[in-house]
Amino acid sequence: MIAADIVIDRADLVATCAGSAPRAGAAQGAIAAIPQASVAAAGGRIVFVGPAEVCRRQVSFGPDATVIDGRGRTVVPGFVDPHTHLVFAGDRRDELHRRLAGATYAEIAAEGGGIVKTVAATRAATLEELVAAARPRLASMLAHGTTTAEVKSGYGLDVESEVKMLRAIRQLAGDQPVTLAATFMGAHEYPVDHRDRRAAYVELVTREMMPAVAREGLAEWCDVFCEQGVFTPEESKTILLAGRAHGLKPRIHADELALSGGSAVAADVGARSADHLIFVDEVHADRLAERGVVATLLPAAAFFLKLGRFAPARMLIRRGVPVALATDLNPGGGLTPSMPFVMALACFGMHMTIEEALVASTINAAASLDLQAVAGSLEVGKPLDAVIVNGPLSALVHVGARVIGAVIKQGCVVA
Amino acid sequence: MIAADIVIDRADLVATCAGSAPRAGAAQGAIAAIPQASVAAAGGRIVFVGPAEVCRRQVSFGPDATVIDGRGRTVVPGFVDPHTHLVFAGDRRDELHRRLAGATYAEIAAEGGGIVKTVAATRAATLEELVAAARPRLASMLAHGTTTAEVKSGYGLDVESEVKMLRAIRQLAGDQPVTLAATFMGAHEYPVDHRDRRAAYVELVTREMMPAVAREGLAEWCDVFCEQGVFTPEESKTILLAGRAHGLKPRIHADELALSGGSAVAADVGARSADHLIFVDEVHADRLAERGVVATLLPAAAFFLKLGRFAPARMLIRRGVPVALATDLNPGGGLTPSMPFVMALACFGMHMTIEEALVASTINAAASLDLQAVAGSLEVGKPLDAVIVNGPLSALVHVGARVIGAVIKQGCVVA
Repeated sequence: MIAADIVIDRADLVATCAGSAPRAGAAQGAIAAIPQASVAAAGGRIVFVGPAEVCRRQVSFGPDATVIDGRGRTVVPGFVDPHTHLVFAGDRRDELHRRLAGATYAEIAAEGGGIVKTVAATRAATLEELVAAARPRLASMLAHGTTTAEVKSGYGLDVESEVKMLRAIRQLAGDQPVTLAATFMGAHEYPVDHRDRRAAYVELVTREMMPAVAREGLAEWCDVFCEQGVFTPEESKTILLAGRAHGLKPRIHADELALSGGSAVAADVGARSADHLIFVDEVHADRLAERGVVATLLPAAAFFLKLGRFAPARMLIRRGVPVALATDLNPGGGLTPSMPFVMALACFGMHMTIEEALVASTINAAASLDLQAVAGSLEVGKPLDAVIVNGPLSALVHVGARVIGAVIKQGCVVA
Repeated sequence: MIAADIVIDRADLVATCAGSAPRAGAAQGAIAAIPQASVAAAGGRIVFVGPAEVCRRQVSFGPDATVIDGRGRTVVPGFVDPHTHLVFAGDRRDELHRRLAGATYAEIAAEGGGIVKTVAATRAATLEELVAAARPRLASMLAHGTTTAEVKSGYGLDVESEVKMLRAIRQLAGDQPVTLAATFMGAHEYPVDHRDRRAAYVELVTREMMPAVAREGLAEWCDVFCEQGVFTPEESKTILLAGRAHGLKPRIHADELALSGGSAVAADVGARSADHLIFVDEVHADRLAERGVVATLLPAAAFFLKLGRFAPARMLIRRGVPVALATDLNPGGGLTPSMPFVMALACFGMHMTIEEALVASTINAAASLDLQAVAGSLEVGKPLDAVIVNGPLSALVHVGARVIGAVIKQGCVVA
């Protein structure tokens, strides 16, 4: 018998999402589901996934074990949110009000709003304040099923403040359940005092920030906002290659507002992930597919910014690009902590199937963070990170319905 | 001093939504907000709304009073959801899965799904089963801030089953907090055995169902699904006029899938509300405005059905039609219990401002149910039905964020 200390027993369906990662094309929707199944773990790691009848015969658990009745429920891997700006100070919620009344971003920025406001507040905040501000947001993500998330710096835009943000991420990673992957994003925007000295800022990022980040081992990834008016493709490439030289793996904000070169840079430098991609075309999709770059799509950003379109998810899937989904939680237009809402937008706005959206929110998202060995699927040996859905798989996209019965992280019920 | 037993004290903002009802055009966004305000009630009714400083001087409350700290919060009227199909039996959640994989409604119906499946399950269910099935859905609506809702029959499609549905609504109305308005909708669809005998079904609705409904006083409203393939404008008019003769006031499902005549019928018969209106044009909008018909828009239905468009809310507002919002909660494509999610779709999909969406979800929705005297605004003398939002008003549309601090019904905290 296999000993277990937690068992999810007799679920209607366990969508394991086991298999190669990341996956693309027809495999994008391969959720490797087992009907009438149980999942068991010991010491936080999965020891059994399979038919409930087999579990009965092979798995034993003592009186102190946690046994969750899976009947009428669906079990899926804990969600992986691979693109967030979770850590920041200040409050820009009033800008939404202005935006909905017709104000442009330029007008809001002229009034002292926009990213500049977040940068000022983040610079002024202590590390403890940043941690405290992020904590309820992270708890909300967890309550919606996110058990692993990426978090970026990028509201400091000077050496000290970028390091402070990354230290805040490290502190959060150590004292709450959600596994966090840290991304250095000094190249999120030009700080106000460098807008006429762009080359000097790129040097600051590559020659001062990166060594400071690398010295403390504060980040695994390097990201850059490649877009018209922000970092050019050439600057982005310089920054990502410098990051790589400091041990920071590349990912990129690409083609969000125009086909501005980000997807080309992603393919050139072999980024693990190209994010947004609202304006990517077939030519560049093919280059991403060739290089195995994950397309991380952020439909909530497009929705809340009223861009009037979403990334071409179906085209990307058709051309063989592995698709992941993320919230883009941020202080401006990123207003949701909820991966299920993002999945709903993927299904109803981008015409993905529920299975494709699930793979995009689990194993492909994990692969976009090089975490496919430890997250994104329910397989023996992996940590038991799982979401228990009250109802069928599709109940996940009933926005606002209370369908998450429990969230499990490393074998413990945490939400 | 005015005695109170509940006080919401020192809110950042109280959006009272007081004023004429329904309201249209520029007044659609008139939320009559008071900054730094308090609201107090006694015996369930509002006794004070106004500046917190004035409340201090004029309102007294004993040690047993409920005092809610409003700082950092916004208080809005409890939401009114004026279009739901809350009561039904059976489970069609699997159809969503099929639909997202590309199946058409015709294919799903051919497999035994669609409304026919709900009708069969609803006919087979007892009254108690209908009540029990609806209860968690209603609790979920309440948790999202809905304190008043309309509920339709229309899954019975025979005398006995329609009466059973309306009795279930009456039972629910009496034993939980949400105020319910009942609508008879025998003309929701033709039952299978009447598809070739349409005139006979219209007679069944008008000559048998309506008298039975009227005899027990089971409904206040009569609704009909006027659409290509369902009830023609002529049939709809016949039914609504017959309903009126039985004391049932008219409302109508209009122009959801095509400009098929529903808005014209609404204007002709003087319906209080024309619902859906995805395909309404300016000519018909003007007729609705002239007749004072409320346009009840259901963007969640358009979203979940992937209709690819929403009702022209801005045009309707521009032409002077009062706009309300509703969930269209139903067993098929109506997947959300959440008025805040509907407000988010109104803002980000239909380009309404947050103020317009709030009026549409409160006082205008109440007016569409003739309940403006008792619901939809925070005014002295009205029941205290309120939602306390953690943060500014716009936080309401941060889908998935936990922004509802409390829901108050008739002066009691109920969620």
